Amino acid sequence: MASNSFGKLFTVTTFGESHGPAIGCVIDGCPPGLEIAPEEFRRDLDRRATGRTRHTSQRQESDDIEILSGVYQGRTTGTPIALVIRNTDARSKDYGSIAEQFRPGHADYTYWQKYGLRDPRGGGRSSARETTMRVAAGVIAKKWLAERYGVTVRGFMSQIGEIVPNAYDLSAVEENPFFWPAADQVGELETYMDALRKSGDSVGARVDVVADGLPPGWGEPIYGKLDGDLAAALMSINAVKGVEIGDGFAVVASKGSEHRDQLSRSGFASNHAGGILGGISTGQQLRCSTAFKPTSSLRLPVRSVDIHGNEVEVITTGRHDPCVGIRATPICEAMVALVLVDQALRHRAQCGDVGVVSPRIPAQLELDADA
Amino acid sequence: MASNSFGKLFTVTTFGESHGPAIGCVIDGCPPGLEIAPEEFRRDLDRRATGRTRHTSQRQESDDIEILSGVYQGRTTGTPIALVIRNTDARSKDYGSIAEQFRPGHADYTYWQKYGLRDPRGGGRSSARETTMRVAAGVIAKKWLAERYGVTVRGFMSQIGEIVPNAYDLSAVEENPFFWPAADQVGELETYMDALRKSGDSVGARVDVVADGLPPGWGEPIYGKLDGDLAAALMSINAVKGVEIGDGFAVVASKGSEHRDQLSRSGFASNHAGGILGGISTGQQLRCSTAFKPTSSLRLPVRSVDIHGNEVEVITTGRHDPCVGIRATPICEAMVALVLVDQALRHRAQCGDVGVVSPRIPAQLELDADA
Amino acid sequence: MASNSFGKLFTVTTFGESHGPAIGCVIDGCPPGLEIAPEEFRRDLDRRATGRTRHTSQRQESDDIEILSGVYQGRTTGTPIALVIRNTDARSKDYGSIAEQFRPGHADYTYWQKYGLRDPRGGGRSSARETTMRVAAGVIAKKWLAERYGVTVRGFMSQIGEIVPNAYDLSAVEENPFFWPAADQVGELETYMDALRKSGDSVGARVDVVADGLPPGWGEPIYGKLDGDLAAALMSINAVKGVEIGDGFAVVASKGSEHRDQLSRSGFASNHAGGILGGISTGQQLRCSTAFKPTSSLRLPVRSVDIHGNEVEVITTGRHDPCVGIRATPICEAMVALVLVDQALRHRAQCGDVGVVSPRIPAQLELDADA
Amino acid sequence: MASNSFGKLFTVTTFGESHGPAIGCVIDGCPPGLEIAPEEFRRDLDRRATGRTRHTSQRQESDDIEILSGVYQGRTTGTPIALVIRNTDARSKDYGSIAEQFRPGHADYTYWQKYGLRDPRGGGRSSARETTMRVAAGVIAKKWLAERYGVTVRGFMSQIGEIVPNAYDLSAVEENPFFWPAADQVGELETYMDALRKSGDSVGARVDVVADGLPPGWGEPIYGKLDGDLAAALMSINAVKGVEIGDGFAVVASKGSEHRDQLSRSGFASNHAGGILGGISTGQQLRCSTAFKPTSSLRLPVRSVDIHGNEVEVITTGRHDPCVGIRATPICEAMVALVLVDQALRHRAQCGDVGVVSPRIPAQLELDADA
Repeated sequence: MASNSFGKLFTVTTFGESHGPAIGCVIDGCPPGLEIAPEEFRRDLDRRATGRTRHTSQRQESDDIEILSGVYQGRTTGTPIALVIRNTDARSKDYGSIAEQFRPGHADYTYWQKYGLRDPRGGGRSSARETTMRVAAGVIAKKWLAERYGVTVRGFMSQIGEIVPNAYDLSAVEENPFFWPAADQVGELETYMDALRKSGDSVGARVDVVADGLPPGWGEPIYGKLDGDLAAALMSINAVKGVEIGDGFAVVASKGSEHRDQLSRSGFASNHAGGILGGISTGQQLRCSTAFKPTSSLRLPVRSVDIHGNEVEVITTGRHDPCVGIRATPICEAMVALVLVDQALRHRAQCGDVGVVSPRIPAQLELDADA
Repeated sequence: MASNSFGKLFTVTTFGESHGPAIGCVIDGCPPGLEIAPEEFRRDLDRRATGRTRHTSQRQESDDIEILSGVYQGRTTGTPIALVIRNTDARSKDYGSIAEQFRPGHADYTYWQKYGLRDPRGGGRSSARETTMRVAAGVIAKKWLAERYGVTVRGFMSQIGEIVPNAYDLSAVEENPFFWPAADQVGELETYMDALRKSGDSVGARVDVVADGLPPGWGEPIYGKLDGDLAAALMSINAVKGVEIGDGFAVVASKGSEHRDQLSRSGFASNHAGGILGGISTGQQLRCSTAFKPTSSLRLPVRSVDIHGNEVEVITTGRHDPCVGIRATPICEAMVALVLVDQALRHRAQCGDVGVVSPRIPAQLELDADA
Repeated sequence: MASNSFGKLFTVTTFGESHGPAIGCVIDGCPPGLEIAPEEFRRDLDRRATGRTRHTSQRQESDDIEILSGVYQGRTTGTPIALVIRNTDARSKDYGSIAEQFRPGHADYTYWQKYGLRDPRGGGRSSARETTMRVAAGVIAKKWLAERYGVTVRGFMSQIGEIVPNAYDLSAVEENPFFWPAADQVGELETYMDALRKSGDSVGARVDVVADGLPPGWGEPIYGKLDGDLAAALMSINAVKGVEIGDGFAVVASKGSEHRDQLSRSGFASNHAGGILGGISTGQQLRCSTAFKPTSSLRLPVRSVDIHGNEVEVITTGRHDPCVGIRATPICEAMVALVLVDQALRHRAQCGDVGVVSPRIPAQLELDADA
Repeated sequence: MASNSFGKLFTVTTFGESHGPAIGCVIDGCPPGLEIAPEEFRRDLDRRATGRTRHTSQRQESDDIEILSGVYQGRTTGTPIALVIRNTDARSKDYGSIAEQFRPGHADYTYWQKYGLRDPRGGGRSSARETTMRVAAGVIAKKWLAERYGVTVRGFMSQIGEIVPNAYDLSAVEENPFFWPAADQVGELETYMDALRKSGDSVGARVDVVADGLPPGWGEPIYGKLDGDLAAALMSINAVKGVEIGDGFAVVASKGSEHRDQLSRSGFASNHAGGILGGISTGQQLRCSTAFKPTSSLRLPVRSVDIHGNEVEVITTGRHDPCVGIRATPICEAMVALVLVDQALRHRAQCGDVGVVSPRIPAQLELDADA
C-alpha cells in the first residue's frame, strides 16, 4: 500500500500541496450504485473550512469539489472516484520569507532531512489542507454506512485547553462553532478563544467520535483490528498525539471487576470497552478520542535554524488557528467512517457466505446492545 | 495485506491458537546476512514469559523457538524466516467448562458473532499467547536496528494502577520483575500485587517505550507516518486501549508557545513531540506510551450469557495475571522495533539513491539531537 | 504485500527451503466454517509428488501435512491456517559438491548476486519443493469454490516436447501418469520419456487449466483483472516462461470478426476470450495455458563459473525430472483456484450488497453460458 | 492494494473514463530530486496517441498533461505526483445508440454483470484511453531508470497478423508508424493495413520489449518475481491475451541441454531465459513479448443482446483501430519500466545495506553479461 493511500478495500489516495495547483483524492473500491452529487460534499467541507468563524484561520477557499470520474448519471459505478479542488487562495507570499527556515513544531525540518528538498509554500504536503480530501472521502463513506447499515458517525469537542464540557448533548454540537456538546458553555469558550488569539498563542484540544448502529463482527484480528485501524487513522491526522478507545488511559487505574462489561439477555450492562472486544465490534456504540496539540504557527517569535545551519528567529505572520482542534471534528468523523466502511467490506468478503448459509451481517444472536 | 500480517517490507505473519498444536510466525523481507541463532530469542521470551514470577500467571512453557527456514549457516538468507513454538502446556481442560459461555471483557462474544464459531480453548486466537511471536520477531528487528543503525529500543512500566514511578532510571528496569524504573518502589509494588492477587481482582498498567539513535527521516507521510504506524502497532496488542506519542494527551491543555520544540545549532531544546514531526523522525529520542486495561479473567464471578442466549455466571478458574501490563513491556518494545525496521527499509527504498548522490541515511544537516 | 505471499484477501504465505527442516504455509482470510481434514491434502500432494512414477524424479517424501492452526473441530475458524511438512528425505549430500558452483538455467547465480549468500542445498528456496505448499493451499481453495459456487478447476497436459494431444477427453487425464487428455497416446509418451531419460536430457511442456461454473463478475479492473492475476500466479511457478488466456498468442494472426465471441439469448456462441472480458469473468469456461521450460538439472555436463569466478564444469548427479511440466498440472490448478477464491471474496466485498438489494452473486441477466 | 493501483513501492493509481471530464493518475513513492517537466510527457504520449497516422483511429486529443502536485521547482519532492488530462474530444454521441447493447468482445457485458450499471460512453473505464496514464507514469519511470542505473527500455512490433519482421534493427523502430524493426517492410505493412481498414476488419499483433543495463539482483521471489510482475503488468493492458519471457512458448519443444544458458568468465553464452532466473534479473538483456487480440469494434455487424435480454445487431460506427497493437508499443514499454523501477526500489530496501557493507547495487561478481 502506498503511503498516501488509506484503507484496504475502500482505498483513499490523496494528493496535493497547500499552495500547489490543486488538491484531490482517488477513492477506489467504492461499492457501485451509491447516489452522490457534488453538492453533497458542501456541508462537511464547510464544517471543516478555514475562515468559517473568527475562531479559525482566515483562508478563503470556495473548496468546490469536481468529480472527475467514477460517477455516471449520479451513481457510483464501482470504478475510481477522483475528486479535485483547485487552490484559489494560495497567497504563497505569506510564507515566502521563511522558505529556508525550519519552523519549530512543524514538519519543515523532517521533510527536508528525508527528501533533501521540500515545497515550503504553506507547509506544502504537510499542511492540514490535505485533510480536506479526507473529509470529502468521508462524505461518501458516511453516506454508504447510513444507507446500507444505518450506521451514524458523529464527532464533538470534549476538551479545549483545560475546559471540559459540563454536559454531553450531541444535539448541541452543530449549533455552535466549537462542536461543543454543552450549549451553555459557548460564551465562555468564545471569551477564552478571543483572549488566546489576542495573546498570539494557541492551545490543544480533544475530539471524541461516536458511531452508532454498528453490527457485531466488524474488525479483523490480529493486525487488522478495528481499534488498530482507528488508531492508525486518527494518529495520521495532523497534530494528533494520542488516541483512545473506550475508557482509554483511564483503564490504567481501573479494576478488572469494574472494567469488564457484563452481558445479559438485554445486552451489555456498560461500555467501558468502547464497543470493541478483541479488535471486533460488539454492536455497542463505538467510542474513541483524539488529542490535538496546539498549533506551532504563532506570531510569537521562536528560535530555530535554517537549511544552512544558521540560527534564526521565526515569526509566522500568515493566518493560523489558535486551536486547530476545532475544525478537526469533521476530519476525525471522516477517518472513523473510512475505517468502518473498509472493515464492513472486509467483513463481508471473508464472512458473507451468501447463497449457502443466510447472510451473516445480521447477528446470529440478537442482543439489545443498548448499553 | 492479510490481517494477521504486520509491516509493509519487513512483514511478520503470525499464526496459532493458545491451545492448538503450535504458534509461529513467518518473517518476510528480512535483509540477508544478519547472524541469528535460536538461543538469541531466549532473553526476550523469558522477559515476556508467563510463570516468570509470582506476579504473573503460572503457565509453564519452555517456549523453545525452532527456526524452520530462512537461516543458513547462522545467517539470514533474505528468504522467509519461519519460527515455531510447540504448545506443550496446553491444559485445555481449565477452560472446557466455559466453552459455550462468553467471558465478559473478552473476545469470546465478538469472535463468535463474526465467524459463527470459535476455538474456546484458552481464548484461541485471541489469547495473548500470540504476542510470543511478536516478541520473537522483535528480537530480529532489534538486532538489525542495533547493528546497522545503532538504534536501541527499551521499554519500562510507567504506571501500575495508581502507582507512578518516582524516578526514571532505565538501568533499574531489568533488575526487578515489574520493569519498573525506580528501584526503591519495588517493595511497595510487591505488596500491592500480592494484595491484588489475594482479592481476585486485576488492575491496568501503562508501558512506555523509548528508542534512541534514530536518524532523522524515517516515516512516510501521509498514511504511513511513523506515529501512525506506531499507533496501529501498539493498539493491536491485546488489552491496549490508548496510545500516546511524546507528550500525548497532555498536549490538550498545553500552549503552542511551550509545546513547539525549539532548534538551535546544538539541536532541539526539548522533545515534547516525542521525536516525530509530520510523521517523520527528527533524530531525537522516540517516546511513546500505551495503556493496558486490567485483565477480565478473574475468579470473581460475573454475569454473562452463553451462545444459546441463556444467562450464566462466569468464573475463571484457570491461571491469570493480576496485571497483564507487566509482561507487556517486551511486547511493546517488539512492536516499536518492528515499526522501525520497516520504516528504515521503506526510507532507503524511496530515498536511498546510492551511486548518484551519497547515501542519504546520514543526515544532510548534522545537529546534536540530544534534547 | 510481502513477496512470499500471494492473494489479496485469501492470502497464502509460503516458507521453507528444499533441504531445511520443513516447508509450510500460512493461509489467511479463509472463510470460516469450511470442513477440512489433514487427509484431504493427500490426493493433490500425491498427484504432484516426486517419485510417483518412473517418469518423475525419485525423491521419497511422505509429505504428511500437519495443520498447526486455524482449524477447530474439523472446521476453519477464520483465523490463519498454518500447514507444515517436515523434510524427511533431505539427502543434501547430493548437492554438496556444487555448493559454490552456479548451475546454468538455475537461480543459483541470481540468488547469490541478490542476497550475497544462498542456501545451496537442493536449490534452497528456489527449489520446486516450494510448490508443494501451493498445492496444499489450493486444496482448500478448490474445496471452497466447489462448495460455495460449484466451481471446478481442472488441469491437463496439452503438449510435451513436440507431442500434442489428438483428443481432449478430460476424463482420461487422471488415468495416466502424464495428465494426458488422450488415452491412446499414453504408450507413445512412455516410450518418448524413456528415451529422453536415457539420453540424460529434458524437454518442456504445456499445461492447460480450465475452470467451470464461474459466475459472471469476478475480476477487478484495472490492475486487479482476473487475467492479470492469473498471469502473475502462473508465471510465478518455477520454470514457467509463458502464459496465455483463451486463444493466447493465436490471436495475433486472427481477425476481429472471428475472434469476438457473439452473444445471443442462449449465451455466447464461442469462447475465444477464454471466459474473461475486460478482466472480468463472463460466466463461460475459464481457459488458460502455461509453458514450462525443460529442467536444467541434467547429468549432461555444462560449462559455468563458481562464486570465485573460476570456470567449472557442472554435472547434476542428483535425481531430476526429464519433464518438470508433468507434475506441474496440480500446481497450475492450485494457482488458478487461489486466484479464483481471492477474486470471489473481492467481488462480494465490493459488490455484495446483501440486505439492501438482493445478493449480487447470481447474475442479473441469466444467459445459458454454455459456449 | 486497490485494484486501480499498480506497483508496491512506486505506485501508480489511475482514474478516469473515456468520455468523462478527465483521466489522470497519482504516482506515489517516486524518489525525490528527479527533474521532470510537463513537456517531457509529450514524446511518449504522441507515440501512443490515436490519430497519429491513418493506420490508427481518429480521436483528436491534445493530451496535455497538467502536473497537479508532487513537483516543486521542476523536481520531484517525494510526495504524490498527480497528473491529469482533460478529455476534450469526447464525442460521446458516437456510442450513444448502443448504450444498452453489449458489444461482443468488449467489457460491456462483464462490467454490467459485475457492477449492475456501467458508463457506456466510449467504453467508460474499460476504454484503452486509460493506458494514456500508464504511458505518462512510464515516462517518469524510464527517466529515473536511465539516470540512476543507465537502464533503457525499448519496444517494437514483432508481428502484425501473419507478418513477421525480416530483421531486428531497433534503430528503425521509431522511423515508421508501425514501430517495425525492419525498414524495408514498411511499404508492405501500409498496403496490408489499408486493405484491412477497407475490409472493416481488424487483426492482432505481437509487441516485444527489451530492457538493457539491468544489474543482476532485481526481482523478489516467490510471488514478487520479476517475471511474475511483468506478466501481471503486461496482461493488465487492454486486449492482451498472452505474455512470454525470453523464449516463451518455444521452450515447450526445446531440450534442457539447449535451453540452459551457459556461463563463463566472459558472461552468459546465450539468453534463452530472457534475462531472468528464479524471478531475479541476471544482468543480461530483459526480453518479453505480448499478444494483442484484434479489436472487436468493427463496422461489420455482429449479433448480440442488450441489457433487457433482447437480441440485437451491433455495428460500431465510431472511430476504431484496425490493429490496436500498433500503438500498444509505448504502453508495453511503460509497463515494463514501471515494473523495473518498483523492483529497483524493493531491491535496495531489502538488500541495500549502506553503511555496513558497501552498497549492494553493484554486482559482487562482475561478469561481461553481453550475451
